[in-house]
Amino acid sequence: MEGTKAAEEEEEQVVNPWEVSAKDGGKIDYDKLIDKFGCQRLDQTLIDRVQRLTSRPPHVFLRRGVFFAHRDLNEVLDAYERGDKFYLYTGRGPSSEALHLGHLVPFMFTKYLQDAFKVPLVIQLTDDEKCMWKNLSVEESQRLARENAKDIIACGFDISRTFIFSDFDYVGGAFYKNMVKVGKCVTYNKVVGIFGFTGEDHIGKVSFPPVQAVPSFPSSFPHLFSGKDDLRCLIPCAIDQDPYFRMTRDVAPRIGYHKPALIESLFFPALQGETGKMSASDPNSAIYVTDSGKDIKNKINKYAFSGGQDSIENHRKYGANLEVDIPIKYLGFFLEDDAELEYIRTEYGAGRMLTGDVKKRLIEVLTELVERHRRARAAVTDEMVDAFMAVRPLPNMFN
Amino acid sequence: MEGTKAAEEEEEQVVNPWEVSAKDGGKIDYDKLIDKFGCQRLDQTLIDRVQRLTSRPPHVFLRRGVFFAHRDLNEVLDAYERGDKFYLYTGRGPSSEALHLGHLVPFMFTKYLQDAFKVPLVIQLTDDEKCMWKNLSVEESQRLARENAKDIIACGFDISRTFIFSDFDYVGGAFYKNMVKVGKCVTYNKVVGIFGFTGEDHIGKVSFPPVQAVPSFPSSFPHLFSGKDDLRCLIPCAIDQDPYFRMTRDVAPRIGYHKPALIESLFFPALQGETGKMSASDPNSAIYVTDSGKDIKNKINKYAFSGGQDSIENHRKYGANLEVDIPIKYLGFFLEDDAELEYIRTEYGAGRMLTGDVKKRLIEVLTELVERHRRARAAVTDEMVDAFMAVRPLPNMFN
Repeated sequence: MEGTKAAEEEEEQVVNPWEVSAKDGGKIDYDKLIDKFGCQRLDQTLIDRVQRLTSRPPHVFLRRGVFFAHRDLNEVLDAYERGDKFYLYTGRGPSSEALHLGHLVPFMFTKYLQDAFKVPLVIQLTDDEKCMWKNLSVEESQRLARENAKDIIACGFDISRTFIFSDFDYVGGAFYKNMVKVGKCVTYNKVVGIFGFTGEDHIGKVSFPPVQAVPSFPSSFPHLFSGKDDLRCLIPCAIDQDPYFRMTRDVAPRIGYHKPALIESLFFPALQGETGKMSASDPNSAIYVTDSGKDIKNKINKYAFSGGQDSIENHRKYGANLEVDIPIKYLGFFLEDDAELEYIRTEYGAGRMLTGDVKKRLIEVLTELVERHRRARAAVTDEMVDAFMAVRPLPNMFN
Repeated sequence: MEGTKAAEEEEEQVVNPWEVSAKDGGKIDYDKLIDKFGCQRLDQTLIDRVQRLTSRPPHVFLRRGVFFAHRDLNEVLDAYERGDKFYLYTGRGPSSEALHLGHLVPFMFTKYLQDAFKVPLVIQLTDDEKCMWKNLSVEESQRLARENAKDIIACGFDISRTFIFSDFDYVGGAFYKNMVKVGKCVTYNKVVGIFGFTGEDHIGKVSFPPVQAVPSFPSSFPHLFSGKDDLRCLIPCAIDQDPYFRMTRDVAPRIGYHKPALIESLFFPALQGETGKMSASDPNSAIYVTDSGKDIKNKINKYAFSGGQDSIENHRKYGANLEVDIPIKYLGFFLEDDAELEYIRTEYGAGRMLTGDVKKRLIEVLTELVERHRRARAAVTDEMVDAFMAVRPLPNMFN
């Protein structure tokens, strides 16, 4: 998602929708990010509250702090407790054929939220954005949007509560009216401050933030939420998308809408280490959902950065550095069993387990995950994509 | 159409879509404008050619130089002569309830072109623009668009060749795809140079130029021009709209389209004198299509700037200054009879006719014009507006 250089030269780390880079090749400092963006940390009290309200264990991404920050999640839960439902909004910029594991994170979590709260969901595919930022043709952007829709559907969303749309298909009508309302409230200087646009950027880019903003407002979906202008919106996303929604939340009350609430995740680390997001230009930096078992085994064994010591002797003596170990990080995302994860962390950290053992377990976990995804995706037909993307009412979406 | 200050401080006259002002309260220098904008003067050879190709006398606005400049009109006529048709595109920003005579000029001329060349026509009502620039609500902008559509229909357009659309209704689909294609080709610096936007302008304004650009491309209207991507477009408009189409013509070949051709008019002068366009904030600066016969008589007698002398004695001696005389200018627009106009000019210029006589004739001409328009508008029903604005094929539009 590169293309626009953020005007944050004096900042040490850069996080915006097109660039994520840590200070001096180190780790992203998420505490600093929370301070800078002005969001809140998602603490144990909130996680407990989610558990109580949904009567099910919190998702592994909540238990392990993958979704670590929020804005106004309390208010959405307050309203939910009073009996007022909300809707979920997430999205994807369809810039590549195949998704990697990091791309799945928000969708896996959104599926959990949909199931747990029994609420409707809109998923925006920003084919217009990718057409502009990646200089893809309209047709290629639309093709990628449909391909990505198949991967998204494969995550298991409930068709009776889910509307997937691409901007090239759906922009217009009530959605466009909200785009104009938002555009009226944001100066060029403001978007320069938020997104770091320069005078050499094209006006397509300058026009885009309202497109990503308006799915936050129920009136953008008259076929779903007609007469429900008061419905609240909760957005699960990676924290690099926060700038769009800071802008949206600033504008919302001025045009008579609720501010959307957010629940925001860490970045999924690259195989080579936790210095930012994965790079689409380096296929060996990530596990893709199209990777074979052999690819996965090879990539993990060859590229996954290890916190183990340089000799077995030293490893037995000092143990692994779990803070930088990628296999442990990945297991933290995808190994569901808390007890097993704790056992591996203890044994590996104490040097009783070797890197090879941990990688072996990770390869099993990821191979199973990717296999499951591949089977689910193979079952997604063009007719199912059409059905999810049809502009239609969802009469039982709150039941 | 004010709101954005053009960044042309060292220029002596300012002409852009939101501001028209002459140097030191003098007249607009149209020769200088042609040089600056880089369009061509519409000369007698071209007018003769239009007459020959259409087998009818050129419109009074052509004969008298009201439409005085063009871009690539020759090429459109070359193609027409080879048997290739074109389509017309014009528009209006619906910012006020009632139109004045200056607003009618492009529509009267466009109707002539449609009848003479027997070609289809698209008319864009930029309700989104007015919502943004005039800070009207979406609903009020849409209401004004429909009201203005009635005045436009009253000009006599052929429903079998005419599609009227409002941006709030029609933006989306193929039209939006073209907006993105145009937006990708224009930098922010470029629109600052063309339109004079500043950092304090909102991004709705920055997003708008592609909306006015894309009706120039036949693929924006798949219900009309599907498979006719090579169809040329001719845009009749006042010359203050030239910046939009300079931008459009710059972009067109880069996205695989023909440059639109233009035929551009002078500004219709205010009653108080020829220093620019009329001011919507001063109802006494213009004759409105809603004015009664009494209003017209009163406004012409009281406000129409006279080139006559300060006493009858001097007038008989020196004659009227026709260069500054508004009644003569107005008759030049609306008195069809060339011989009578020439007679009045000669007699008035020689002092044999008095200002009162000329104003009397002008009052007759305008009262009849406005009466005719009022009757035609009263006959326009909501069903007719719906019919003109329906997204539909026009199967006989070229016959």
